[in-house]
Amino acid sequence: MATSVNVENLNPKVLKCQYALRGEIAIHAQRSLQFSSPGGQSSAEKHEDEDQELTVERLQQQLQAEPGSLPFDEILYCNIGNPHSHGQQPVTFFREVLALCNHPCLLDKDETKSLFSADAILGARQILATIPGGATGAYSDSQGIKGLRDAIASGITSRDGFPANADDIFLTGGASLGVHMIMQLLIRNEKDGILCPVPQYPLYSASIALHGGALVPYYLNESKGWAMEISELKKQLKDAHSKGIDIRALVVINPGNSTGQVLSEDNQYAIVKFCKTEGLILLADEVNNIFVDNVKFSSFKKIIRLMGYSEDDLPLISFQSASKGSYGECGKRGGYMEITGFSAPVREQIYKIASVNLCSNISGQILASLVMNPPKPGDESYASYKAEKDGILQSLARRAKALEAAFNNLEGFTCNQAEGAMYLFPRIHLPQKAIEAAKAAKKAPDAFYALRLLESTGIVVVPGSGFGQVPGTWHIRCSILPQEDKIPALIYNLKAFHEAFMAKYRDQIVDTV
Amino acid sequence: MATSVNVENLNPKVLKCQYALRGEIAIHAQRSLQFSSPGGQSSAEKHEDEDQELTVERLQQQLQAEPGSLPFDEILYCNIGNPHSHGQQPVTFFREVLALCNHPCLLDKDETKSLFSADAILGARQILATIPGGATGAYSDSQGIKGLRDAIASGITSRDGFPANADDIFLTGGASLGVHMIMQLLIRNEKDGILCPVPQYPLYSASIALHGGALVPYYLNESKGWAMEISELKKQLKDAHSKGIDIRALVVINPGNSTGQVLSEDNQYAIVKFCKTEGLILLADEVNNIFVDNVKFSSFKKIIRLMGYSEDDLPLISFQSASKGSYGECGKRGGYMEITGFSAPVREQIYKIASVNLCSNISGQILASLVMNPPKPGDESYASYKAEKDGILQSLARRAKALEAAFNNLEGFTCNQAEGAMYLFPRIHLPQKAIEAAKAAKKAPDAFYALRLLESTGIVVVPGSGFGQVPGTWHIRCSILPQEDKIPALIYNLKAFHEAFMAKYRDQIVDTV
Repeated sequence: MATSVNVENLNPKVLKCQYALRGEIAIHAQRSLQFSSPGGQSSAEKHEDEDQELTVERLQQQLQAEPGSLPFDEILYCNIGNPHSHGQQPVTFFREVLALCNHPCLLDKDETKSLFSADAILGARQILATIPGGATGAYSDSQGIKGLRDAIASGITSRDGFPANADDIFLTGGASLGVHMIMQLLIRNEKDGILCPVPQYPLYSASIALHGGALVPYYLNESKGWAMEISELKKQLKDAHSKGIDIRALVVINPGNSTGQVLSEDNQYAIVKFCKTEGLILLADEVNNIFVDNVKFSSFKKIIRLMGYSEDDLPLISFQSASKGSYGECGKRGGYMEITGFSAPVREQIYKIASVNLCSNISGQILASLVMNPPKPGDESYASYKAEKDGILQSLARRAKALEAAFNNLEGFTCNQAEGAMYLFPRIHLPQKAIEAAKAAKKAPDAFYALRLLESTGIVVVPGSGFGQVPGTWHIRCSILPQEDKIPALIYNLKAFHEAFMAKYRDQIVDTV
Repeated sequence: MATSVNVENLNPKVLKCQYALRGEIAIHAQRSLQFSSPGGQSSAEKHEDEDQELTVERLQQQLQAEPGSLPFDEILYCNIGNPHSHGQQPVTFFREVLALCNHPCLLDKDETKSLFSADAILGARQILATIPGGATGAYSDSQGIKGLRDAIASGITSRDGFPANADDIFLTGGASLGVHMIMQLLIRNEKDGILCPVPQYPLYSASIALHGGALVPYYLNESKGWAMEISELKKQLKDAHSKGIDIRALVVINPGNSTGQVLSEDNQYAIVKFCKTEGLILLADEVNNIFVDNVKFSSFKKIIRLMGYSEDDLPLISFQSASKGSYGECGKRGGYMEITGFSAPVREQIYKIASVNLCSNISGQILASLVMNPPKPGDESYASYKAEKDGILQSLARRAKALEAAFNNLEGFTCNQAEGAMYLFPRIHLPQKAIEAAKAAKKAPDAFYALRLLESTGIVVVPGSGFGQVPGTWHIRCSILPQEDKIPALIYNLKAFHEAFMAKYRDQIVDTV
């Protein structure tokens, strides 16, 4: 007979999948903001065995019910990369174009000329002209609107200095959806392995688990600024082979998420060579969100072409998102993947997966094309665009620097420099006494630390155990996204908390004569 | 050693999955519109063994290269439910709100008052007030923005007369994404079966195949206006059990897609009772897109509550989309599912799957809330909204009627009345000679007919074999979406083609004395 639905009869791959950032402390903190109605089943009831979430919810509720009763006035979400939730403002030009494309009859009105910049009006007209009937309410080709893919290909060509082809672009609802599509394509069973960096944000671990494959970790070298080492790749590949795991692809995240390092071109050359030698697909998660001046971004496609390899030599997928960097448009769900080096029959299968999802949302598609084709010198919006973009990037650089220095000034902390992305991933050398206290509380030491930090300061960070780390080391991931006026207090509170924590847990130095 | 990527080493579930509407003739017809550049690998090269697609592409190319050289001037896409691609206009109020939410600084400008309706301005302000910081560029809770879910719950409560709860609403990027999430949740292996109507649009077949489950078909009774019969459900359930298949859920599509029938309330009562008795989850794909006056929509949740069942008695998921009906906003990818009767631990798993996708796009979320809360009498936009909506629904009714009559007037065709959705699914009784000609051409008879129709008239329909049909019967699915001014020519060309087809293939009547 049919069985009723319960956790025991669900897809075990779903049960196995963990999603540290949004599945645990982070998102439930955010949810509790919204679960304010007293009726219904509260989030608290649902998670009574999950202390971290309960803590955030309790604190949030207390802040609402009894303002001033806690040593802080707000929960500060330094856990997820969601720039606009921290007050980062959208690029005006992008939003002008989106508004006009959503309501094209504005284009015929006189008032529009005073409300919108001339290049936004022109841009919207050009985009609508590439959509049959200008119908942004219609499904597009499952791969995305051809005119927008042309624009993206043109943007990639300008960026790399090597030609890109619109046929290689698949517009996706954020980079995550592209990653899921590719994992669905490649993973047959638990013997199909994907080499992934550790630490990494848990998109890949979640997606690989959902599709039933094997995540084969390679550790970034923290002592060398989170460098990617070919010797480590070779070691992990060999280990995986010895366990009968067939490595299908190598994931590279550049700039590193959660670590912020940017790969050197030499490192990129070596990675490409490794993939070529081992016959691996290179999955490059590479959103150009670098905020330091002295480091430049090179796409893997550029590197591959510079090495003289052609389309036929190496399968490469480059994932791009409109959610990151100076645009930070997470909620628009815009992104693309550029697929090169795959045979036509394999591309047909990718197209089929895209077809099953019908198409990605058209506003997200438009935004993905805009971030690859922002205003140029001479355009009316160029000055404001450049000011907005530079303002955000320079501020990110200042915030990263201030937080990095703050962590490095704390006893037991070491923190590498971030050059891009939106996070720091400092290591914390916890005293033995703290580790034992964590054990007694049945928590990982970094989770224990993060929880105490939250309770004392309202600052939410993600314990390194959510991202993977070298066993026996402990980290936290802290975003650099709180707006600048909040950084001094954040640092002050962090420092005060940490000093008190260390005072409580510092190992006693025993004089041995 | 690592293997390189080819069709032989991809996920076999992907290879097995078929997606008739967008994977084959339909979408490639649309793609060919866009693959006009002579360079690169053409779609033709990729599909040289797929005659239907090649035909559309050849015709499309010929229309572009030599206008006037074919007996028709355009390809008429009666294959997919994409209203705006046929010129259906969006509801003005919805687009006003979306534009304002995309570019909120418009709200502070004087000119905005003359460009936008007062209730759209108010609506946008209210929506932005429910989003922390008004940030439509931020990720939301993975379940969707709480204020929008409140609005949807309120809309459902008004619709059904029974309370709905925002905690039960999961906003999804169109109904399809919700369906994929649930299939991912439920399907463990090929012994997990989902009862699905036949004919049905191929979302369910594709999703079940991708997740490795078993589609267990139940046939709608064409002779009774595509009625759903409990005896057929019982028969198929028993057959499945005898094969060791565990039926997890029953999919009901109401109004039927591709058949357009609306279930009677008595039928709905019987379906609920069947699910309750057999312990099945009821998956109700129920977008209220009815266009005839004498038929009314009842959600399954309303029926379940009318029967006196509570939340605890029956697991139900109701899928809703902004892509259908009078709004037809396919490209916005907005939708939701309302989940009732599931335990907290199971809901947590659903939440986890949603988390892996981060969140659905915010414009789609806003639109999903708007379609459940359109302008009300007294609002400035009410009159225009009602006129737009009624105009579309009345026109759909006229188009459905005209096409239904046209099919029923053709020799060998029988066509049931459509009461909702966007399609007709007429049966064609093909002459033996045509069936043999199809066999010689290595095609299904209905695919053969559809191809000839395309070649002669430019009209694209989907052969019934793409949706499933009682073996030995043949159908085509034809959308009713071409705008009204195109319907007379469509009917004229269809009739002329069919008469010529029958003249060629009609079986000779042999006098037997």
